[in-house]
Amino acid sequence: MKRKLLFSGLFIAVIAGPAFAQSEADPAMLQKIRTEGMDHSKVMETAFYLTDVAGPRLAGSPGLKRAQDWAVNQLKTWGMQNANREAWGKFGKGWEVQKNYAAITVPYYHAIIAIPKAWTPGTNGAVKGDVVLVKADTITDLDQYKGKLKGKIVIFDTKTKLPEGTKADLNRLSDEELDRMEKATAQPAGSRRPAGPNPRFAAFARLRALRAAISEFLVNEDVALVLSMARGTDGTVFTTNGASYADTAKAVSPELETSGEDYLRILRLVKAGGKVEMEADIKTKFYTDDLQGYDVVGEIPGTDKKLKDQLVMLGGHLDSWHAATGATDNAAGSAVMLEAMRILKAVGFKPKRTIRIVLWSSEEQGLFGSRFYVLNHFGDPKTMQLKPEQAKVSAYYNLDNGTGKIRGIYLQGDSAARPIFKQWFEPFKDLGASTVTINNTGGTDHLSFDAVGIPGFQFIQDPMDYGSRTHHSNQDTYDRLSEDDLKQAATIVATFVYNTAQRAEMIPRQELPKAQGTN
Amino acid sequence: MKRKLLFSGLFIAVIAGPAFAQSEADPAMLQKIRTEGMDHSKVMETAFYLTDVAGPRLAGSPGLKRAQDWAVNQLKTWGMQNANREAWGKFGKGWEVQKNYAAITVPYYHAIIAIPKAWTPGTNGAVKGDVVLVKADTITDLDQYKGKLKGKIVIFDTKTKLPEGTKADLNRLSDEELDRMEKATAQPAGSRRPAGPNPRFAAFARLRALRAAISEFLVNEDVALVLSMARGTDGTVFTTNGASYADTAKAVSPELETSGEDYLRILRLVKAGGKVEMEADIKTKFYTDDLQGYDVVGEIPGTDKKLKDQLVMLGGHLDSWHAATGATDNAAGSAVMLEAMRILKAVGFKPKRTIRIVLWSSEEQGLFGSRFYVLNHFGDPKTMQLKPEQAKVSAYYNLDNGTGKIRGIYLQGDSAARPIFKQWFEPFKDLGASTVTINNTGGTDHLSFDAVGIPGFQFIQDPMDYGSRTHHSNQDTYDRLSEDDLKQAATIVATFVYNTAQRAEMIPRQELPKAQGTN
Repeated sequence: MKRKLLFSGLFIAVIAGPAFAQSEADPAMLQKIRTEGMDHSKVMETAFYLTDVAGPRLAGSPGLKRAQDWAVNQLKTWGMQNANREAWGKFGKGWEVQKNYAAITVPYYHAIIAIPKAWTPGTNGAVKGDVVLVKADTITDLDQYKGKLKGKIVIFDTKTKLPEGTKADLNRLSDEELDRMEKATAQPAGSRRPAGPNPRFAAFARLRALRAAISEFLVNEDVALVLSMARGTDGTVFTTNGASYADTAKAVSPELETSGEDYLRILRLVKAGGKVEMEADIKTKFYTDDLQGYDVVGEIPGTDKKLKDQLVMLGGHLDSWHAATGATDNAAGSAVMLEAMRILKAVGFKPKRTIRIVLWSSEEQGLFGSRFYVLNHFGDPKTMQLKPEQAKVSAYYNLDNGTGKIRGIYLQGDSAARPIFKQWFEPFKDLGASTVTINNTGGTDHLSFDAVGIPGFQFIQDPMDYGSRTHHSNQDTYDRLSEDDLKQAATIVATFVYNTAQRAEMIPRQELPKAQGTN
Repeated sequence: MKRKLLFSGLFIAVIAGPAFAQSEADPAMLQKIRTEGMDHSKVMETAFYLTDVAGPRLAGSPGLKRAQDWAVNQLKTWGMQNANREAWGKFGKGWEVQKNYAAITVPYYHAIIAIPKAWTPGTNGAVKGDVVLVKADTITDLDQYKGKLKGKIVIFDTKTKLPEGTKADLNRLSDEELDRMEKATAQPAGSRRPAGPNPRFAAFARLRALRAAISEFLVNEDVALVLSMARGTDGTVFTTNGASYADTAKAVSPELETSGEDYLRILRLVKAGGKVEMEADIKTKFYTDDLQGYDVVGEIPGTDKKLKDQLVMLGGHLDSWHAATGATDNAAGSAVMLEAMRILKAVGFKPKRTIRIVLWSSEEQGLFGSRFYVLNHFGDPKTMQLKPEQAKVSAYYNLDNGTGKIRGIYLQGDSAARPIFKQWFEPFKDLGASTVTINNTGGTDHLSFDAVGIPGFQFIQDPMDYGSRTHHSNQDTYDRLSEDDLKQAATIVATFVYNTAQRAEMIPRQELPKAQGTN
C-alpha cells in the first residue's frame, strides 16, 4: 500500500447496504453476456491471431505492429468506434531476430537451444571459434584477456545448478489461499519499501559497473559471441534484454541466452580443459524508421446524456518478449479484453458511460504504454498535476497474469469498492470467482492509473504455469492457453465493465496519492 | 513371468535359514566398500566422460566408440584384466548429426526446436520451401499430391494437444509402493502375453503399410523435409529412429522430430490457410566402414582354485539415443557399474569368482549387444542349446532405469534368491534399499541372460524424472544425474557383486525356460 486509506473496514460495513442497493444491472442483459461469453466465445480465435499469426510482439517490432493492426481492424469489424493506434511518445528502436543458429562443433556436433538477447546485434554472418572462459571478479582481471578474444565465443563461470523437477508446473489457487487473500487487512503505508539505505546497494552498484566494463571490453576485443546462462530447464529458456532499445544505446556484443543444459555442458567441458569450438549465425534487425510507441484504442460510446463523457476503461499489454509468441504474457489478457468488448457489442449493449479498451505497448520495458497514456490524458504522477479527464474515469480493469481463470480482484487498497465488487461477483461463484482482497498486486499497467488516483484494478487469476514455465520464456505459446479459463475471464470482465458503465455512481476513489517527485 | 517357478513361497521360507547361514562376507571388507563408494566416489567423473566428453552414443556412432574406448582405457588404468571392445556380430550403419538447423521464415522468423530422426538423411545443403499439409487416410489419398511436393516441407495433421503440467516431473518411490512390490506374488506363467490373436493387429498392420507407402511416396516426390511431432513439452523432444540402421535399408526422406509447441504452431497456421515457409539445413553422416557391434568387457580375475572359472557379471548398456548425451539412459547405469568395479579394485578385493563387467551396445535397437553376447558365450534361447559357460555364471546384475538410487531388486520370479538378497540388503536399509520383489521388470539387458536360464537381475530404482523428462529425450544430460543416488547405487552394486563372488554356492537358478523357437 502506497497511501492512507480513506475508509476503514468498519466504515465499509456500514456503507455496504447502500452500495448493494445502487445496482442498476439488468438481469436479462447479464444472462445474455454470460451466454455470449461462455457459449459463443471467439477468444481462442482472437488469441490465435495475436500469437501464431502475429508472432513475437517485442516493443517496437514488426510483430507488435502486425498484432496492433489486426486488433484495430478487428475492433472496427466488431463495430467499435475510434479504433486506432495512438502514439504515446518516443520509445526507441524496434528489433527482431531474423536468424538464430548456434551449435557446438568440437568435441562433437550439438545444436544448442539459445535465444539472442533482445536488442543485441547479430554475428554479421556465420562465425566459428573456440569457447573461452572469462573470469573477472574485478575490472583489472580483464587485463589477462587483452588481445586474446578476437573471434572467440565467451562464456562465464557460474555455480548455478539446474533445479530438480520436484514441483508441478501448473497450479490453481486453493480455497485456503483465496480465503487468506479475502481476509487480508490493508498493509500499513510505506511498508513496501524498506526504510533507510539498502545495504546491498553498494554491492549492486559495483556489480553493475563491473558488468558494464566487461561488456565494453568484449566489444573492444571484437569477440564473436557471448553466451549467458538462461533461467529455465528442459529446453525452456527465459529471455531478457541484452542492450538498451534507446536509439543512442552503446554497442554491445552479440549475446545468446543459452539453455541451462547447453550452457553448463559447454562450461563443464571448458573447465575440464577441453577444446570446445562453436559455430553460430545470428542475424537481428533494428528498426529506426519510427521510434514512437503506440497503444491500440477502441470504444463503445456512452449513450446516457449525463454519463456518456465518463469512461470505463479496460486493457492489458499487447507487447511481449521475443522468444515465443507471448501467449500468456499477454496475448491472453489482450484477447480476453478484446473478447469482453466483442461480447458487449454482440449482446447489443448500449452503455450509459463510454467503454474504452486500450492495449498497451512497452509494458515489458517499464509500463511505458500505459504510463504515457495516463500522462497524456489524465495527469502526471510526479507532480500530481491532473487533467480534467482524470475525474471522468470510473475505473480501469487490467488483465496480465497468464491464462488462468479469474478468481477475484485486487482492491489495491480501495476498500470502498469491496461491497460493489462482492455483489458483482455473486453470479460467478459457480465459476470460481468471488474473492475480493484489499491487497495490492504490482508489475503491470493498472499501476499507471492508480498513480494518478484513478481506481485501477487487476484481477486475481489462477497462476497455472505462468511463473514456472511461460512468463518471458521461449515456451509462451498458444498451446499454454486454456480455453475454458479465458472464456470465463472474458465473461466476468464483460460483466464488470457492464456494471461499471451502468452504475449510478462512479467507483469510489481513494485519497489522491502524493506526488512522486522527479527522483 | 514367462515360466514355472521351481520353488513355492512356502519352500523358500524353509530354506531361508540355511541361506542366511551361507554368507561368507567379511564385515571389514563390506565396510571398506561402503567407505570407498560413499566417501571417495569417482562416479560423477566417470559419468562426465561418458556424457559431456563422449557426446551422444547412438549404436554404431563415433560417440559410442569414443565412450567405449574411454571405458576400456579406464578399466585398464584401474587395473582390470582383459579390458577390450569385443565384437558381437553385425549391427549396421553408424550415424550422427553434423548440422541441425530449421526455422520458420514466413509469416515471421522463428527457429524451431527439432531433432533429426535417427538414421535419416540430411537435406543436402540449405533448403527453403513452403509447408504442405499431407492428409492421407488411405494410400489412394496420396494421388492428389502427385507432382506437387518437390522441395516442399511436409507436415501431417494430428489431434494431439500438449498435456498440462499438473504433475511433478520427478518422483521417488513411496514406502507404500515399495511395500506393494515386496508383497507381490508371482504372476501366473504366460500372463504377460494376451492369449489368442490381438484384435488390434489388423489395424496396426494397415497403419504400418500406409506409413510405408507414404514414406515411399514422399521419397519419390523428392520432398525437402518431413516434420513429425515429437512427444514432449516445454522444449523437450523425445526422439526415435526414422529409418533402419541396416546397410540394406530403403531410402527415406530427411525427417525432423519437431517439438510439440513448434509442430502445432506450424500446423495451426497451415490449417488456417496461411502461407508458412521454412528453411532448414540438416547434415547427417552414415558410417559403413565397420558394421560390427561391440561390447566393452573387463575383469577382476577370480583367485579361488575351484571357483575362479565361475563368473559374476554386471553391466548396463552404454549406447544412447542421439538428441542428448544419454545421461540417465544409460550413462548412469554404465558409470555405476564401472564405479562398482573401481570400488572393488580400490579396496584390494581378491574375489573367489571372476568378476566381469560388460557394457552393452545397440540395446536401444533390441538388446542386441547383450543378446549376441549371450548367444556367443552362453547359448541360444531359440533352441536352448547351451554352451558350457552357461553353467558357470552365478548371476548377472543390470542397471538401466535412470539416475535414481537403488531401492531394491527384481527377482524375475527367482524366489529362491529372495532370502539371499534380503540378507545382502540388510546393511543398506539406512540408504533406502531393502525391497526384494518377485516381480519381473523388462525392457533391458538382464532379459538376455534370463532367456538362457542365467539368473539376470535388474535393480529397483527411484524413477526420478526418467519417464517424464529424460528417457530418450534431448534433455538427457549430465545435469539430470544425482550424485548422491549414483554413489549409493555403485556402493550397493559393489556389495552385491562382492557377495556373489564370495558366496559358497552360486545364486539358485529357476527351471530352464522353454526354447523360444524361431518365430
